[in-house]
Amino acid sequence: MNRYKHVALIGLGLLASSISLAMRRADMTARITGTARSKATRDTALELGLVDAVFDTAAEAVKGADLVILCVPVGAMGAVAAEIAPHLNPGCTLTDVGSVKRAVVAAVAQHVPENIHFIPAHPMAGTEKSGPAAGFSSLFDNRWCLITPLPESDPAAVERLATFWTALGANVEEMEIDHHDLVAAVISHTPHLIAYTMVGVADGMNRVAKTEVVNYSAAGFRDFTRIAASDPTMWRDVFLSNKDATLEVLGRFTEELLALQRAIRLGDGDFLFDYFTRTRAIRRSIIDAGQDTEAPDFGRIKPEK
Amino acid sequence: MNRYKHVALIGLGLLASSISLAMRRADMTARITGTARSKATRDTALELGLVDAVFDTAAEAVKGADLVILCVPVGAMGAVAAEIAPHLNPGCTLTDVGSVKRAVVAAVAQHVPENIHFIPAHPMAGTEKSGPAAGFSSLFDNRWCLITPLPESDPAAVERLATFWTALGANVEEMEIDHHDLVAAVISHTPHLIAYTMVGVADGMNRVAKTEVVNYSAAGFRDFTRIAASDPTMWRDVFLSNKDATLEVLGRFTEELLALQRAIRLGDGDFLFDYFTRTRAIRRSIIDAGQDTEAPDFGRIKPEK
Repeated sequence: MNRYKHVALIGLGLLASSISLAMRRADMTARITGTARSKATRDTALELGLVDAVFDTAAEAVKGADLVILCVPVGAMGAVAAEIAPHLNPGCTLTDVGSVKRAVVAAVAQHVPENIHFIPAHPMAGTEKSGPAAGFSSLFDNRWCLITPLPESDPAAVERLATFWTALGANVEEMEIDHHDLVAAVISHTPHLIAYTMVGVADGMNRVAKTEVVNYSAAGFRDFTRIAASDPTMWRDVFLSNKDATLEVLGRFTEELLALQRAIRLGDGDFLFDYFTRTRAIRRSIIDAGQDTEAPDFGRIKPEK
Repeated sequence: MNRYKHVALIGLGLLASSISLAMRRADMTARITGTARSKATRDTALELGLVDAVFDTAAEAVKGADLVILCVPVGAMGAVAAEIAPHLNPGCTLTDVGSVKRAVVAAVAQHVPENIHFIPAHPMAGTEKSGPAAGFSSLFDNRWCLITPLPESDPAAVERLATFWTALGANVEEMEIDHHDLVAAVISHTPHLIAYTMVGVADGMNRVAKTEVVNYSAAGFRDFTRIAASDPTMWRDVFLSNKDATLEVLGRFTEELLALQRAIRLGDGDFLFDYFTRTRAIRRSIIDAGQDTEAPDFGRIKPEK
């Protein structure tokens, strides 16, 4: 296996720190360098041993690396690519972990020299936490990393990157760039926007006290707040950069919601019952696919009979 | 403490089985009788030791009980109340666990004889599982049970019921009936409807394969499917019987969602960032109130650094 010898992490948040910890767990001996915009983040990453060396600038951090991973918010990728482009090691692979792929390609590809393998990717894993101390080595275990090569991408370089992600614990799949953005809009971006909205509504109801919302949240609301606690900068950039697909899915969502709202208004119990029965089946498939556990979770307390 | 000597459970699903297990955990010596519509449920409840005796009809199950708890879907409460009314033990307390309170009062109160204490209640706890085998003794621990007495309710009987719920592990609060229904619409009913809708949208997207939805669900969607796997009959009844409050909150939700959608279309990043920052704060309050843990959860794997 042709392992990378020097991996540079640009941005040192949840994803980058988990990559570092998963690399160590997999006994990868690669040198890890990194950088982050804030000095506090750089210091923490060094203290936690996430990097062998930390640099003030991305230009310095990528020197000599044969794999450079952009772990910054989608909106910052273009500027970072412009900065590092002249300093990239000829023949190295440049990839990213952004949740949107078409916009990253548009922002980054123009800066990438011809002798660099630019291969976008999206490891679909995360938590509601952010920062260098939030990472953990098993974050990618049995999660999916979607690699979205460009038409001109070298198959051997793509294969090498896929092997890297597999070693971190992920299942790897290749996907076309625009299809990725639609899939992400359905299973990630729109659910996040809706969770943010629901939490905003509860926060803004004058006739319901904040203490009531907080104390009684176990009845369903709580799961929305978990999603809606995700990093605001990251998610602002996701929605701005995956605008078309998100708006398409939102259009569908509103249509469906209005149909259910109408059924409630008209007292159409059969419509509601049939709808709720269909959605239950999807849950079963997700458990069967190993993407969630069967354990009941609303109580957040393990059953002990 | 004036404990109940004989508790009758009408309906033997997740809530009733958890009540039974929590009563045993609290060393309550009360006789527990029960009934359920389906023979399979009755047999399972008896096998699991959830009840000391099981009866084919609610009329038989309530005989001699000093506490009768209606644990059937909201839409079935009226018929059950009519059936048991002539058989209730004079002076006994009749309560329920329904998620909606005004509709339960409207359906039940008319059947209740004068010598019975009818005191509606709503333990705000549950999981996405249903049936007699789904219960566990700690379901109510540190969750809230809202008691919504009628104006004519006897304070001593209310106090006795509150003591019962406290012994099962719950925090107890009294609340006015209509206010309860509004609070429940905000923190439980509308979030459930939205989760059902989002799962329905993903299920209906022709351009995204079901396997894609299922495999990549860890990126946010999964938490919606958990909520949307809840019992269809129960939730149909909730929406039909808490129509006004649900429609009010849905109206707010659509308004907020359209504002966010507009910000995405116009590329208004500041609006999105500010909104997402506000919602993050609510999450903090819920953790501080002990209604969720701080542990990151999207990965569903415990961090091991």
